[in-house]
Amino acid sequence: MSLNQATIRHADFATALRVTRQAGIPAIGVWREPVGAVGLSTAAAMLADSGLRMSSLCRGGFFTGPDTAAALDENRRAIEETAALAAAGAAGSAPVLVLVAGGLPEGDRDLAGARSRARDAVGVLAEDAAAAGVVLAIEPMHPMYAADRGVISTLAQALDIAEQFPADRVGVVVDTFHVWWDPCLGDQIRRAGLTGRIASYQVGDWITPLPPDVLLARGLPGEGHVDLASISELVEKAGYRGDVEVEIFNEDLWRADPDRVARRAAETFDGAAGVPG
Amino acid sequence: MSLNQATIRHADFATALRVTRQAGIPAIGVWREPVGAVGLSTAAAMLADSGLRMSSLCRGGFFTGPDTAAALDENRRAIEETAALAAAGAAGSAPVLVLVAGGLPEGDRDLAGARSRARDAVGVLAEDAAAAGVVLAIEPMHPMYAADRGVISTLAQALDIAEQFPADRVGVVVDTFHVWWDPCLGDQIRRAGLTGRIASYQVGDWITPLPPDVLLARGLPGEGHVDLASISELVEKAGYRGDVEVEIFNEDLWRADPDRVARRAAETFDGAAGVPG
Repeated sequence: MSLNQATIRHADFATALRVTRQAGIPAIGVWREPVGAVGLSTAAAMLADSGLRMSSLCRGGFFTGPDTAAALDENRRAIEETAALAAAGAAGSAPVLVLVAGGLPEGDRDLAGARSRARDAVGVLAEDAAAAGVVLAIEPMHPMYAADRGVISTLAQALDIAEQFPADRVGVVVDTFHVWWDPCLGDQIRRAGLTGRIASYQVGDWITPLPPDVLLARGLPGEGHVDLASISELVEKAGYRGDVEVEIFNEDLWRADPDRVARRAAETFDGAAGVPG
Repeated sequence: MSLNQATIRHADFATALRVTRQAGIPAIGVWREPVGAVGLSTAAAMLADSGLRMSSLCRGGFFTGPDTAAALDENRRAIEETAALAAAGAAGSAPVLVLVAGGLPEGDRDLAGARSRARDAVGVLAEDAAAAGVVLAIEPMHPMYAADRGVISTLAQALDIAEQFPADRVGVVVDTFHVWWDPCLGDQIRRAGLTGRIASYQVGDWITPLPPDVLLARGLPGEGHVDLASISELVEKAGYRGDVEVEIFNEDLWRADPDRVARRAAETFDGAAGVPG
């Protein structure tokens, strides 16, 4: 298991490392912003001291806007950070950079065009990832974010892109919150397994009614409608042996004490996600 | 063009008919509740007097709950209402009953099971529809409603069910709000055309940020991110020649004067939906 930092968003990097370790969680999904706040080399030293594995770095991407060159540069920095942090983390750390495609630019209705730009950017960055020993992990986002966050909406679509590149350079993220509804989910997880593409597995639950801000709509494992045990079984059968990240965007969790949130995440995880510890 | 009554939800049946006609819109998508408020035979007489076509009746379905028998009975009544109203409407009225599958029952995480129950219910009702000369139109709903409104989430999935039955008995609804994000949309609209399955076409736009109540998140044509003209072209090329319904669930529209909303819908329609009037 791994605790994704987004679940305890307001904790700084030191606090995030501490509460994760104290909750008995062996790995952490790191976000770039808290790393940037202390600086990369300091963050790498802190991660090394913590004894935790890094399960992924969140996040790169956002390829669909008007300034492609700036987006590529930013992603190259993220690739370097991923390599440095994975090297500093405990054995088993994953040099995985999570990519969110980005949404439609203001006033632009060309969804196919935006999708095509995202694919092209992954193609360019695959070279940089290879040089750095980093895996790019394309994250399909729930279709309700297609307009404003991520134009890659299904696992099939993410795999269609990833499979154009070597499996050790471009993979996909399976995040239960984003893909649980997909009628093709079982087939696509099996496909991802056959071609060795599952670079990250994240669990979060779907709760109803959706909170007013749908960006913060996720529940802890077991709180919602998602059959996490079944999806986890599919992912395990597809050969994934990496850490399972608990990643929950939820305003109530963010307001709570991060120590307590980390402990709750650890408790709910074993029961609901159905993944052998 | 047709005005779906959901766009002017708080108008009673008489008002809905009047404002639709006065806005120069030749057809109306009828909802069961306002019909029930005046009684079926009265509603049929009012529709006949109005000179409007009926483009569909909304809605049947909700098959996934614990009481299947009650759901089937309710849908049989809806089928009778569809036949009666289509017969009363002006020439070109469509005996189409829109079906929304229903969500997951309380505490139930078996999405595949709920989908299977929805399919079985359509199978039973196809007989009743045949006897009444009614077409059942399965509406795939946006995946953000999979838990609580409709477990049929994609056009492909709706077609997988519809194609098990004769094309003049079971078809699908293409609603731009629900399906615009789908990477397979073009292929699936073409498929629906080849097998003659498009029973209804509804236009609504996707606006961001999503309003707090996502059930009321739709915009008038042209207000949001959906390339309606391209989707309308696909639907037209697929052979659909029925009315194009403007169906917008939006709290602001509901608070406005229905006369004005009908006129605005007519105005925005021609420009944005890209369908020959």
